[in-house]
Amino acid sequence: MSESTWKESAKGVIKDLRELASFTSDADGAHRVAWTPTWDKAQDWFKEKMKAEGAEISVDAANSVWAKIQGETDDAILIGSHLDCVPNGGWLDGALGVTGGMGAIKRYGKNGKKPKKTLYVVSWADEEGARFGRSCIGSSSVSGALDMEEAIKLKDNDGISFLEALKRYNLKIEDFPKARDQFMAKNIKSYLELHIEQAPVLESQGKSVACVYGITGCERQYITFTGQPAHSGAPIPMRHDAFLAAAQASLAFREIGLKYNAYCTVGKVKVTPDIVTIFPGECTISLDQRSIDPDVLKKIYEEAHDACIKAAADNKVEVVFKPVWSIPPTIFDKRLAELCKEAVKEETGEGTSMFSGPLHDAAEMAKFLPSIMMFAMSSKGLSHCKEENTPDKDLELAIAAFLRLVEKVSMNKS
Amino acid sequence: MSESTWKESAKGVIKDLRELASFTSDADGAHRVAWTPTWDKAQDWFKEKMKAEGAEISVDAANSVWAKIQGETDDAILIGSHLDCVPNGGWLDGALGVTGGMGAIKRYGKNGKKPKKTLYVVSWADEEGARFGRSCIGSSSVSGALDMEEAIKLKDNDGISFLEALKRYNLKIEDFPKARDQFMAKNIKSYLELHIEQAPVLESQGKSVACVYGITGCERQYITFTGQPAHSGAPIPMRHDAFLAAAQASLAFREIGLKYNAYCTVGKVKVTPDIVTIFPGECTISLDQRSIDPDVLKKIYEEAHDACIKAAADNKVEVVFKPVWSIPPTIFDKRLAELCKEAVKEETGEGTSMFSGPLHDAAEMAKFLPSIMMFAMSSKGLSHCKEENTPDKDLELAIAAFLRLVEKVSMNKS
Repeated sequence: MSESTWKESAKGVIKDLRELASFTSDADGAHRVAWTPTWDKAQDWFKEKMKAEGAEISVDAANSVWAKIQGETDDAILIGSHLDCVPNGGWLDGALGVTGGMGAIKRYGKNGKKPKKTLYVVSWADEEGARFGRSCIGSSSVSGALDMEEAIKLKDNDGISFLEALKRYNLKIEDFPKARDQFMAKNIKSYLELHIEQAPVLESQGKSVACVYGITGCERQYITFTGQPAHSGAPIPMRHDAFLAAAQASLAFREIGLKYNAYCTVGKVKVTPDIVTIFPGECTISLDQRSIDPDVLKKIYEEAHDACIKAAADNKVEVVFKPVWSIPPTIFDKRLAELCKEAVKEETGEGTSMFSGPLHDAAEMAKFLPSIMMFAMSSKGLSHCKEENTPDKDLELAIAAFLRLVEKVSMNKS
Repeated sequence: MSESTWKESAKGVIKDLRELASFTSDADGAHRVAWTPTWDKAQDWFKEKMKAEGAEISVDAANSVWAKIQGETDDAILIGSHLDCVPNGGWLDGALGVTGGMGAIKRYGKNGKKPKKTLYVVSWADEEGARFGRSCIGSSSVSGALDMEEAIKLKDNDGISFLEALKRYNLKIEDFPKARDQFMAKNIKSYLELHIEQAPVLESQGKSVACVYGITGCERQYITFTGQPAHSGAPIPMRHDAFLAAAQASLAFREIGLKYNAYCTVGKVKVTPDIVTIFPGECTISLDQRSIDPDVLKKIYEEAHDACIKAAADNKVEVVFKPVWSIPPTIFDKRLAELCKEAVKEETGEGTSMFSGPLHDAAEMAKFLPSIMMFAMSSKGLSHCKEENTPDKDLELAIAAFLRLVEKVSMNKS
């Protein structure tokens, strides 16, 4: 197959991305939050598109949608990503990986050449955890990492429980682990995922695409500072102000992140009672910490804990920690990483390689399956926002390199 | 009248306070937030109680409730405070002043001796501004300080507008200024208010009650920091994190307050998008600043502004300011302050005197009327919370001293 054909396939993928955006995005960004009607529409679109290419469609027990093209052997490769996004998200995060897989199915489906290995494309359920705060629901159901006791307690910002939201899908949380058996029956031997970088590293190096050799580990927790709310006319030295303790801790987290070249993020903030004339008696923040080095992850976690204890003491308040999510760093399969670098080099002339700060479903897959990821550069490193973008020329290079990788893996019997 | 009788009246006031609490409070505190059914119940209770004492009841155009006992002359004195409170508030804030006035009406009503001056007690509408963020609605309607354009735009945390909430009361915002004419017709010559201190100054000095010679001025604004939300896997040095800017500014406000022995409070905090995996692109905080010294108030306001500009620059975000409320410091009438100190001294042996950090309706009255306040000590300085308390022995002394003050003013023809 000639090089121009890789590019043609890539252009087709970009067309699909724009089609998806046309009915799931508006001026405020993309609205495909998992377990909402717009996400459902996106999942249905994926099903219909893949049916038209001759793929066999199925939905697993955790609501991930699967498309299958039978190969010469039952040994299968899986291309996956997610169609859900954060509120007011971008057009590429997750969607690029699924449409990239769709591009592969177009190459090997009823109008293409039959692959040696069987080919699956999955649209994982709820990678972002945007509504219920738990990421990678679909992929962790398959990996066995989904904690049922924790999942049962999940609630959205309006107080609606995850269990309640599942009713509309006729899904039961206790069935989610069945997704693992459904997965095992598929005889999948390797996992490939194309994604945007969501950070400005590639752009700052002037690169369009990279092999991703690993993903940072993540420690995620809620931290609640509890003081004593009182009137805004009370003298400052006698206050027990929970928000100022949280503010002090949040600034310390940034210093810890900078010190170790790691990631510390306070994303959610809630003060109580949230009234102009009362200083907060309670403040809960989320803390998301990441590193590719497990020792660093342990250190930043411990130092953040100490910073909270200090902030609480300095502000004469109490602090409690509630861990919500944890995953160790992932180093991907070495053989797939070599093939991935080859594909990147064939397309761009350079075997660029890097690790990922953002978490991906591939981290769940890599627990039990040889896996690899590829990144397309992100303009200004922006993601999870309406400004998220990758210029078409870079997108084309990345998609073409990814399709080369799929070819390398799917056309190889071993 | 003997001293024991002052104490008996004081005990009656405490009994009324407990009766009010019995149907407006629970284990989480008091729930008399203005423009809610529990506040309405409290206002009705006040009307019924005062009717039973022979008082004439009226409700003004801003929903403040008035009780009147005719004196020998039409020259009137007014005792006022408020029955509304913050969510999960205390049993004394505002309620003490209204029940203190009720105690006076019992002394001069149909079972008491006729006063020389006509006596009014008012339960002001919405002193706290807890629901719509604008304090002293009732008293500022009378003083003429209520800004109609601003009032029309007020919304609660659920997005319900003030105008919408008024429908249940058959009230129209454009009628609120009529409260001023209704007030003027009453021929009121002085204003008295009893309140809890809401700060720990008197407790730390071992005092039960004080004459309040003034109230701090207040500058209140919303401050919005706007950066760029992006993924929690984006490198920290490249972020534009709006929350960290707000955190830095909030800690600076405290230092500014401490430097000038003034008050700076961040009570409300809202981050957007408020998601675990995204650092905030926007953060809005409220800032409430107070001082008894107009020069200090100006300085802390300007320095807070500068601190925000610096925090915005340090965090590579933008900042905008939205002033919502401003009142200069109040120094009360000197003659009334002397009578008030006399009353405090007669009851406690000491003519204790202080200024108030918290704002009160009396600040609105003092703009056009000789006014004075008296404070009962607050345990641990706590207020605007369920733990708000004043021990009975201190309450008795304060109420007794206040009734002595009412007697001094109401029995004086001049």
